[in-house]
Amino acid sequence: MQTPHDIPAQVVQALTQVCGAGPVALHEPRFGGQEWTYLKDCLDSTFVSSVGAYVDRFEADLAKFTGAKHAVAVVNGTAALHVALLLAGVVPGDEVLIPALTFIATANAVRYCGATPHFVDSNMETLGLDPAALREWLKHCSEQRGGVCVNKQTGRPIRALLPMHTLGHPCDLAGLLAVAGEFGLALVEDAAESLGSYYQGRHTGTSGLVGTLSFNGNKTITTGGGGAILTNDTALARRAKHVTTTAKRPHSWAFEHDEVGYNYRMPNINAALGCAQLEQLPGFLQSKRRLYARYLAAFAATPEISLVAEPAGCESNYWLQAILLSEDVAGQRDEVLKATNDAGLMTRPVWTLLHRLTPYLDAPRAPLPIAESLERRLINIPSSAGLA
Amino acid sequence: MQTPHDIPAQVVQALTQVCGAGPVALHEPRFGGQEWTYLKDCLDSTFVSSVGAYVDRFEADLAKFTGAKHAVAVVNGTAALHVALLLAGVVPGDEVLIPALTFIATANAVRYCGATPHFVDSNMETLGLDPAALREWLKHCSEQRGGVCVNKQTGRPIRALLPMHTLGHPCDLAGLLAVAGEFGLALVEDAAESLGSYYQGRHTGTSGLVGTLSFNGNKTITTGGGGAILTNDTALARRAKHVTTTAKRPHSWAFEHDEVGYNYRMPNINAALGCAQLEQLPGFLQSKRRLYARYLAAFAATPEISLVAEPAGCESNYWLQAILLSEDVAGQRDEVLKATNDAGLMTRPVWTLLHRLTPYLDAPRAPLPIAESLERRLINIPSSAGLA
Repeated sequence: MQTPHDIPAQVVQALTQVCGAGPVALHEPRFGGQEWTYLKDCLDSTFVSSVGAYVDRFEADLAKFTGAKHAVAVVNGTAALHVALLLAGVVPGDEVLIPALTFIATANAVRYCGATPHFVDSNMETLGLDPAALREWLKHCSEQRGGVCVNKQTGRPIRALLPMHTLGHPCDLAGLLAVAGEFGLALVEDAAESLGSYYQGRHTGTSGLVGTLSFNGNKTITTGGGGAILTNDTALARRAKHVTTTAKRPHSWAFEHDEVGYNYRMPNINAALGCAQLEQLPGFLQSKRRLYARYLAAFAATPEISLVAEPAGCESNYWLQAILLSEDVAGQRDEVLKATNDAGLMTRPVWTLLHRLTPYLDAPRAPLPIAESLERRLINIPSSAGLA
Repeated sequence: MQTPHDIPAQVVQALTQVCGAGPVALHEPRFGGQEWTYLKDCLDSTFVSSVGAYVDRFEADLAKFTGAKHAVAVVNGTAALHVALLLAGVVPGDEVLIPALTFIATANAVRYCGATPHFVDSNMETLGLDPAALREWLKHCSEQRGGVCVNKQTGRPIRALLPMHTLGHPCDLAGLLAVAGEFGLALVEDAAESLGSYYQGRHTGTSGLVGTLSFNGNKTITTGGGGAILTNDTALARRAKHVTTTAKRPHSWAFEHDEVGYNYRMPNINAALGCAQLEQLPGFLQSKRRLYARYLAAFAATPEISLVAEPAGCESNYWLQAILLSEDVAGQRDEVLKATNDAGLMTRPVWTLLHRLTPYLDAPRAPLPIAESLERRLINIPSSAGLA
């Protein structure tokens, strides 16, 4: 038996109990459906690129699954975020409120618009932005000037609020929408990690002005590389399609581009993969929920470790399972990472908080006590749907 | 028999003679090799995304084929251009010299760097930038200030020269490299259209500091969507890989990103397609050369029409075949386009010159008499390798 405080060994034992002996990946996709058939159909039709029926179908299937009125498929989640911010009216010189605890793509997308990320704190239960802390911070740091929320210290407009549904767990959208309304901010949802996650019965990414998804290889479903923009606003959807396809106006032969657009469309071959994957999503979600239950049992005897669970009123996709070390044993995080990875059981810490990274050292930020606590204590553990 | 001056009917007849009755696409890919095998291998391995052996292999195969020391595969040709310009040191506020006669992606990539395209004229034989006209223009419009070429009128540094090998025909690289040297400009080659084209025995895209390729669905080979950066400079290649993969420093679990990077990597599944396509490239090039010969014969009896041919000292890939109407009949261009497209034989004019498009109306430009003449008279005709 392990002593109660040999945390690294306890974690290795619990992971082995659930996943079997290593090597076990952090997250790998499953191709058990029509992937093969649809890819062959693409090749046989010769439509592998920008023209082809699978892009239209994938967009329709995504809209149906999420309940969004429109989905626009793009080349990856970062591109989706970039365009979502453009649609929200973010312009050079603006600031955009984002969590410090997120993947760097969230901040980079803000930079691509010529704007600056402004980091705010997380909530311990949801792992996402905390509406109460955000409200207090905005009362302190901003003022309304001519109907625009302005950062008093930098003088820059704070244009949008960009929460992320961390590891697939919905953040407090009702609270954040209220803050966005009070301060006149556009709300854009980064739902890159939360396909299949619901906030009070509503799919993540569909409550704000625009939402974004990712289908990277490590996500719940994959298109190789890919993303999507979700919106209920038909004019915004049309504009999203236009801007992501080089802003070319429809004509059978002439080249008329009416603004600086992007080559962000998803190729048909990647959409074909997405159609096949999406058909299997309900099964993947069930497996991930079973995996959570198995981890819960495996860690039950270790009081120093809790498992991240879906917030109240939410249904999470459990994209990446995570354990949270208690403050007592937080200092053993790197030993846990080493012991598990050495045993072939892939784990990793949550992201380094973005305000600590070279490109964002000078970005404005609120106090970040919860994000800092989560950063020290969260560890992602193997999460593939195939494990349960 | 047609009268000699019924140009639209003559073109329909010549195209039908070569291509058969419509519908005939402008350019469609062929999948007659190992595409199927490699895609299946991807699915079976579950490596469809950012990790996987096909990306490495495609990069190695591209380097071998082109003779470049390094190739870095990316998500599309526009992304390749964007990063190539960053590698060349283009920064916000700069100007970059580009042809007015090119696809809008060339100019957009300049804008993504925060720089301004500065349009210069083409050469009637190569369709690409004209070194003599460029030299005269730079003597007139620029001056050296502290070792930097500066546009006297705008006061902005002119940082780089970005020629494009139009429709696959190499431009006068020796002449352009001489001008770049004289004025202190970095030379970046847009070889999006010229995979398989050689300037004096050297593959296009490998003579300047950096070059770029595209594998869009309409190109000589396709990866669905894709592109590549070519360079002989090992440090630049390393930097290209870093910047296109979110600037994450290698570590088995930690997230350290040392600059604002991009999510521009090519997914493994698209690279798998590319590997299979590249194996067939020599055959595609032979077919395209045969198609040129057949068009040459079909248009021989129509003196008002000439076929665009590879420049002296060059070997072109004949990506898109093009006819040039003589000045006498240039006014019939739109009738030719209508008659051919109505007959199901897809044709299109060359691009609208970029300085005429809404986003670039205010961009600086040289006199553009040759580009304007080509714009009025060039028509692209069906060019698939499968036609010959």
